[in-house]
Amino acid sequence: MALLETSKYPQGSVLGSVNPDLASERQTASFSVEKLTALLDGGTEQTRIRRAVGTYLQGLETTAVFDTATQEFILNTPKISAMKWWPGDMGRSATHTVVFAQLYVHGKCYGIHPFIVQIRSLQDHSLCPGVTAGDIGPKMNFEHIDNGYLLLKNVHIPRENMLSKFCEVRPDGTYVRQGSQKINYFTMTTVRISLISDEVLTPLMKACTIAIRYSVVRRQSKLKPGEQEAKILDYQTQQEKLLPQLAAAYAFHFINDYLQELLNRGYIEIQKKNFDMLPELHALSSGFKAVITQHCTAGVEICLRACGGHGYSLLSGLPSLYTKILASCIYEGENTILLLQAARFLIKCFMAASAGQPVPPSVTYLAAVKHGKCPAKNKLDFLSPDIYTEAYQHVAVRLTSSTAEKLQDLIQSGVNKHDAWNQCTVQLVQAAKAHCHYIAVKNFAETVEKLETKAGIQKIMKHLCDLFALHGIFSNTGAFLHDGYTSPAQMDMVTASYLDLLAVIRKDAVPLVDAFDFTDKTLNSALGSYDGQVYQRLYQWAQKSPTNQMSPAYETYLKPLLHNTLSKL
Amino acid sequence: MALLETSKYPQGSVLGSVNPDLASERQTASFSVEKLTALLDGGTEQTRIRRAVGTYLQGLETTAVFDTATQEFILNTPKISAMKWWPGDMGRSATHTVVFAQLYVHGKCYGIHPFIVQIRSLQDHSLCPGVTAGDIGPKMNFEHIDNGYLLLKNVHIPRENMLSKFCEVRPDGTYVRQGSQKINYFTMTTVRISLISDEVLTPLMKACTIAIRYSVVRRQSKLKPGEQEAKILDYQTQQEKLLPQLAAAYAFHFINDYLQELLNRGYIEIQKKNFDMLPELHALSSGFKAVITQHCTAGVEICLRACGGHGYSLLSGLPSLYTKILASCIYEGENTILLLQAARFLIKCFMAASAGQPVPPSVTYLAAVKHGKCPAKNKLDFLSPDIYTEAYQHVAVRLTSSTAEKLQDLIQSGVNKHDAWNQCTVQLVQAAKAHCHYIAVKNFAETVEKLETKAGIQKIMKHLCDLFALHGIFSNTGAFLHDGYTSPAQMDMVTASYLDLLAVIRKDAVPLVDAFDFTDKTLNSALGSYDGQVYQRLYQWAQKSPTNQMSPAYETYLKPLLHNTLSKL
Repeated sequence: MALLETSKYPQGSVLGSVNPDLASERQTASFSVEKLTALLDGGTEQTRIRRAVGTYLQGLETTAVFDTATQEFILNTPKISAMKWWPGDMGRSATHTVVFAQLYVHGKCYGIHPFIVQIRSLQDHSLCPGVTAGDIGPKMNFEHIDNGYLLLKNVHIPRENMLSKFCEVRPDGTYVRQGSQKINYFTMTTVRISLISDEVLTPLMKACTIAIRYSVVRRQSKLKPGEQEAKILDYQTQQEKLLPQLAAAYAFHFINDYLQELLNRGYIEIQKKNFDMLPELHALSSGFKAVITQHCTAGVEICLRACGGHGYSLLSGLPSLYTKILASCIYEGENTILLLQAARFLIKCFMAASAGQPVPPSVTYLAAVKHGKCPAKNKLDFLSPDIYTEAYQHVAVRLTSSTAEKLQDLIQSGVNKHDAWNQCTVQLVQAAKAHCHYIAVKNFAETVEKLETKAGIQKIMKHLCDLFALHGIFSNTGAFLHDGYTSPAQMDMVTASYLDLLAVIRKDAVPLVDAFDFTDKTLNSALGSYDGQVYQRLYQWAQKSPTNQMSPAYETYLKPLLHNTLSKL
Repeated sequence: MALLETSKYPQGSVLGSVNPDLASERQTASFSVEKLTALLDGGTEQTRIRRAVGTYLQGLETTAVFDTATQEFILNTPKISAMKWWPGDMGRSATHTVVFAQLYVHGKCYGIHPFIVQIRSLQDHSLCPGVTAGDIGPKMNFEHIDNGYLLLKNVHIPRENMLSKFCEVRPDGTYVRQGSQKINYFTMTTVRISLISDEVLTPLMKACTIAIRYSVVRRQSKLKPGEQEAKILDYQTQQEKLLPQLAAAYAFHFINDYLQELLNRGYIEIQKKNFDMLPELHALSSGFKAVITQHCTAGVEICLRACGGHGYSLLSGLPSLYTKILASCIYEGENTILLLQAARFLIKCFMAASAGQPVPPSVTYLAAVKHGKCPAKNKLDFLSPDIYTEAYQHVAVRLTSSTAEKLQDLIQSGVNKHDAWNQCTVQLVQAAKAHCHYIAVKNFAETVEKLETKAGIQKIMKHLCDLFALHGIFSNTGAFLHDGYTSPAQMDMVTASYLDLLAVIRKDAVPLVDAFDFTDKTLNSALGSYDGQVYQRLYQWAQKSPTNQMSPAYETYLKPLLHNTLSKL
């Protein structure tokens, strides 16, 4: 944060012009901004120099033009807004990069391809001719990675530097594609699935460990007069914060296994030149990457806040877990875009299924639209995986089919299909989330069933599965109530069962996080260590903080102030 | 984060014993932790030295014992777990503190009172005898404040150092209270209301300004083939992220005015020795502090994520807005506790109203329970403030009355009243939130009505008011559907009106944030500056980052590596 001092980053309109996209936004206001500002300020009106000329930013990109004469590609980044920004290790360290660029041969564009480009000298690490590169500056976390920017100006590389496993440019400029273009998806799919475990689940599991251990050490207020102060985990509200996160950590651990297994099968098929599984793999990896990163990020924040002030101290370990996991919602595909990709697959499959065509296994349920009602008769029925899995399935089908219907209605009413799609995107995102949630619940229930040889574990996993499912219903009651599949009376049963489960799982909360088996060193938390000596450790660590060394501020500012003041008395 | 290096904060069980509260949690597990761990790890079992003896942490607190012989108070902090922790400016700067301690006179405890205690020498800033104090170490933000810890051991202060406006200890030890004990609430009330504007609303307004300006400069993908890439604010999903935050910023700005006005009236009454308004003021300030900090924190996070990777850069200004506003959910009253205090007031008033007794103005609606249905017939009806305000009122009454009923049922079935309260807390929190949401919607609608002389502003404020209200229903459909007050068909109308509004407000989005009138210097954001020159500024600021100065890492590590490798070729 210190990097953001104004002296280092001078402010003001140093650039001399207003971006016209912004300027145009200001011309159409149907009210007086100044009057509105005055209303907010309670009276004062302010003015400021405003300029309204400039250049349009355009979505241009780096090109790689093949020169048959020299057998080289010539790379160019046309504008600042087309610069590469964010690649890790590129800011100061890397000597070589893989640059994606629009391939041009004989004036024809063949789309994005990867090229190996040397950017720094191997002798003295200076930038190569035509290369502008550097570090993008301070971030919310990942200080240890020099994320970089890169701009290329007439950089020449030999023909062999194009990665050519699937596409090749021959010396005469002939462009040859081998295999399916869809294979590009497979790399992204692999990366999205692999990040779930290391970069997303682990932080949530750590946060749960820290917050739950702390919540049985921290005591606050009395549940009953005359008693000892209660452990905060004995409060229903604290259970309601933490235990659903714990259940989610387990649910996503099992869905991760499911996705890994699917990926392995897909890989075997691809090696046999069968690309049929790619669309489903792409949709599931996109949808779950978005759903899991979003859920886990929210979960870590809940854990942090559930530890009160101490959670906000870096010594708790929670802030850095949060600032790290937050990035996962953005990198490797922004979540909203990924959900819309999953939704596009859902809509396609729904249409296909409705027309009686075959669809991939994870979406066959879309063909079997049922119009029944939830059969639960009392709150215990909601501890039946069949009951709640069916409810989730019903909601996923309803949201997909109703959005498909809206989409068709809009198109039939004359709306351009791209506009129609845009007008449905909020609901498409809901459908994609519901689909993933359904798969996660179903997979958790199936995993629990397979644990039949481990009775003790099966029992507690069943509780967690129930909690994961009922928390989802409790947090999203409208989706289940909407078409009457679940009645209000049944929703009260869900609430009752859900709240009962909190008290049940509370008993095993600590062993359930101990099972994640983090060492104290890995947790790096004064609140979450295995021995629970929270206050002693907080105190020890605080004492060692460099902020406790005498600051020059006393001699420079405080001492003269205090001594002058004293002499005037 | 650099402060968290392992070398500075040694890990492991340096303290030699496991906290018994934690140890006891591990004894009751009904399953094998090791087996479960193995399941998660996919096979390996790990062991670790575990110890299970130690001391109980107890909720003890600092005492101030009056000694009539010396006319002094003697202050003691009995244990590390009772240390003062977090007070600002205390870590290294303050010479004097106001310490709250349990007052004892002649062996009798009179509860918490404030005492002025000198903790550092005015000559050389060294700690006074008996005082242990220091900085609590690194935090998620607020690096500029030396939050501190304090432990007092037999610290003597003169009788005059007790703050005695309302309570006094006379020289002979007689304890005299003047005025109402409730006055203690007033300080908290004042602080909670005053922080809303400066520390909570301003960050949300800044985040909206940055994200909305950026969203009309940033273009990504094409809405239609052949067109220019679209401004991301033209995507429905981006509108759905940002515009409700904008509406909330306005809604809370107006509720802040409402609370300030109420506070002023309360203060005038208190000066007349009339304390009648205190319970209502306490409940409203508690409830709104929680609701607004929570809503605005979530809103800032949404804005950050809506800017993609660049939002995650500190140069966007958004990460520091988030890490700062997050603290507001915790300080000056943890939000869950505050919501439960508001709920306690609601339940009391509901019982009183049901018994025909008078209740404060903000809760008279609880007496008028209506069992009607929402009268809306088409989507335009949901743009009527009467329609949606009534719906919010209905939900607030239903949640309060149903929770009051559950509470009574539990108590009548023999559950201890404290346990019964705990078992209702999740629902009590919902009721308190619904109450505040209702007041916020009602107040926004009333504010819009009063703008009749400013037609342009009234029109756009009406749109924002509608959006704030409908977004709340759309995000929480279950609460409105539950008892059939709103039908599923009506909910579809809400969704349609809500999505329509996004497109309407989109047109005025930039002027609506310009009206907040932040200077570029205050925003301190490469993404959000008035001129919209996002990419140029990002590039300029990144180049100035200290991380772009040549790092010694090249000479020390990279150069030898690269040169050795080369020599082997």
